[in-house]
Amino acid sequence: MPHTLAEKIMGRLAGRPVTAGEFVEIGPDWTFSLDDGIGLVDRYFKLHNVHKIADPSRIALFYDHYSPADTPLHAHVQRIGRELCAKFGIDKLFDVGEGISHQIAVEQGFVRPGHMVTNTDSHTCTIGAVGAVGCGIGVAEMAYLWAHGKLWFRVPESVKITLEGKLPPGSSAKDIVLAILQRISARGALYSSVEYHGPALAHLSIPERMTLCNMGIEMGAKFAVVPGDEVTRAHYASLGIEVGDMPQPDADARYAASHTIDLSQVGPMLSAPNKVDNVHAVGDVEKLAINQAFLGTCTNGRFEDLAAAATILKGRRVAPGVRMIVTPASKAVYRRALREGVIETLVEAGCVVTTPGCGACAGIHQGVLAETEVCIASSSRNFLGRMGNRDAKIYLGSPATVAASAVNGRLTDPREFLP
Amino acid sequence: MPHTLAEKIMGRLAGRPVTAGEFVEIGPDWTFSLDDGIGLVDRYFKLHNVHKIADPSRIALFYDHYSPADTPLHAHVQRIGRELCAKFGIDKLFDVGEGISHQIAVEQGFVRPGHMVTNTDSHTCTIGAVGAVGCGIGVAEMAYLWAHGKLWFRVPESVKITLEGKLPPGSSAKDIVLAILQRISARGALYSSVEYHGPALAHLSIPERMTLCNMGIEMGAKFAVVPGDEVTRAHYASLGIEVGDMPQPDADARYAASHTIDLSQVGPMLSAPNKVDNVHAVGDVEKLAINQAFLGTCTNGRFEDLAAAATILKGRRVAPGVRMIVTPASKAVYRRALREGVIETLVEAGCVVTTPGCGACAGIHQGVLAETEVCIASSSRNFLGRMGNRDAKIYLGSPATVAASAVNGRLTDPREFLP
Repeated sequence: MPHTLAEKIMGRLAGRPVTAGEFVEIGPDWTFSLDDGIGLVDRYFKLHNVHKIADPSRIALFYDHYSPADTPLHAHVQRIGRELCAKFGIDKLFDVGEGISHQIAVEQGFVRPGHMVTNTDSHTCTIGAVGAVGCGIGVAEMAYLWAHGKLWFRVPESVKITLEGKLPPGSSAKDIVLAILQRISARGALYSSVEYHGPALAHLSIPERMTLCNMGIEMGAKFAVVPGDEVTRAHYASLGIEVGDMPQPDADARYAASHTIDLSQVGPMLSAPNKVDNVHAVGDVEKLAINQAFLGTCTNGRFEDLAAAATILKGRRVAPGVRMIVTPASKAVYRRALREGVIETLVEAGCVVTTPGCGACAGIHQGVLAETEVCIASSSRNFLGRMGNRDAKIYLGSPATVAASAVNGRLTDPREFLP
Repeated sequence: MPHTLAEKIMGRLAGRPVTAGEFVEIGPDWTFSLDDGIGLVDRYFKLHNVHKIADPSRIALFYDHYSPADTPLHAHVQRIGRELCAKFGIDKLFDVGEGISHQIAVEQGFVRPGHMVTNTDSHTCTIGAVGAVGCGIGVAEMAYLWAHGKLWFRVPESVKITLEGKLPPGSSAKDIVLAILQRISARGALYSSVEYHGPALAHLSIPERMTLCNMGIEMGAKFAVVPGDEVTRAHYASLGIEVGDMPQPDADARYAASHTIDLSQVGPMLSAPNKVDNVHAVGDVEKLAINQAFLGTCTNGRFEDLAAAATILKGRRVAPGVRMIVTPASKAVYRRALREGVIETLVEAGCVVTTPGCGACAGIHQGVLAETEVCIASSSRNFLGRMGNRDAKIYLGSPATVAASAVNGRLTDPREFLP
């Protein structure tokens, strides 16, 4: 029987072929925990008297949500996490300032094609960029997984999205995924594995694939994945890692739905308040004045994203009265952007650079909006209150759209700044 | 009658000679407000129906305490401040990421020798580095001052501190001021103007003088000031500003007390928990393990401070398990440190760089300590709870001591790393 990539990966973990709809009890290759949930993992352990965990070598802990700590509570949970790592012999602790979990896992390459990752973070589907599958789980499930090493999952149906054609200048991976959301809606892939296919993938880099997979969860998906290919292999080779055979979906695998996107038709897009699938061409949206421009997150906080913004901001200035906040997704991103002069260009243009991490995205750290404010963000969510204030408005766009809007002080099509 | 510098400056504002102990109603040259108090200024205005202010050209607003905003409340007060500036025609608004008020005022040179500055910040005495006097005031006083342009003050007595000799290698301006605190205690200059004198001043730069004056408030002082001299003149010349005659204390002025410090005897010092005047030679303090090293603040967050730390950290690493957080005092400091490779050296060594501002100093933003933690900080206060947690311990030292301790993971005399 033919299988999707999700079925192949979960079948490997189950030790037998599995099919969408089945329930399996499996041990994911990786379980990632974060500073925003680790304190509760500890509480569950205390409640249930847990003093031993299943396999410390499959666990990693990342401090990305409150980093550096801004309250005694956040400092406390980070301390708790360090103590758990020491107690249980977990050596993968990415402390304050190292960056976002999904980003680090791809940069360092310890998640491999065919792996399954769980994490107390809904954007764990980002990891699909390297032919792995990842999903968010709750803190109670995480505590159980640390203790027992296995958890039940329903094997998801898959939704096939085929990408054809070539992106026009001024468009980016973010615009592709916003175009997909416009087409299939925020419920277009509920509890499904979004499997990306098509000839256009050969021209999409790992960072671009991360953006594509990242917003899988915004379509309701369990996973979002680009099956491993030569681009994937080259990424690992650049890290000195040789990947062998990478699992592939069968050619005749069954999909719950299939969609084809012609990239040549994808222009700069905006997701307007307060729904991620309220997507419009930038040119069709009112040229609203903005208060804040935010560049960062697991969606679009990579080196390439900062460089794209810098291309527009070089020799220009962020408009008076606008704050542009830049949060590199990881320390490695920050260091490369330092070395290549991108940080200097951004700061010269008037940007404010913060410590690497999740930044302003979730409205809990550095860059919270005030009431009545309008923000253009490179992040993935614009629901009411997302950036800390229910009376603010969030528009989502590409790094180029964020930069162009910052320069003009109002929502702007980045093609206005094409060379 | 001979006059101290404080009497000269307050006399100019009063329009007549004044003497220590007198009460005067005067309009300071500058009133600075910050994000941590501006919301209350607005409330007082609403309460008292204030719709006009005395002189917008003497006011500046700085967002340094919560920058970028980490809560909706902080985002709100920053919004209120922007609206007040627009309403009253205040053009000096230093928004998110620009840096600390005292630092910006000196860098940009709009505070001149002989000026008097008030600010809702106790470290406003820092401004004394350029021959001006500055003091903190409450938010209610600030609202009154915005509205009426004048406020009453008692003219302070002055305490003369004469600096002689030459600092040995490994010591810095921070060690001088800690040595002074050790000598005269945290009550050694209550409501006084600390006036620095002596031949050693010729060798102390404006950044070093800022450190010396900054901790005047920790001696209980109203002002701390280095009378303007050729070093001062050269600072303004570098900004393209020609300063004319700078007010000087009379040679036979009367001082409430006089102290002389021989810099050649000043080694690296630490202020131990929980009192700023609990000062010891670093070598005399137990080599306690540390959790966090913090480099920044209006005390020691300048380019020279970051460069001093980088000298020690270059080619070395922050010890495992230690977080070293670096917060440049201003965007100008950050940009220079970027340009000169200091940021890269610090990040390479494992430091975490935050947005310019007050940072972790006050325990309200980025770098809050957890219970039981030990921190070595380049800041100015170590009382119980200062960095956000009453169950943490704070040691204060020079940038070199902070960096040396970060490398070793325990309190360390920086002379261990002298070339």
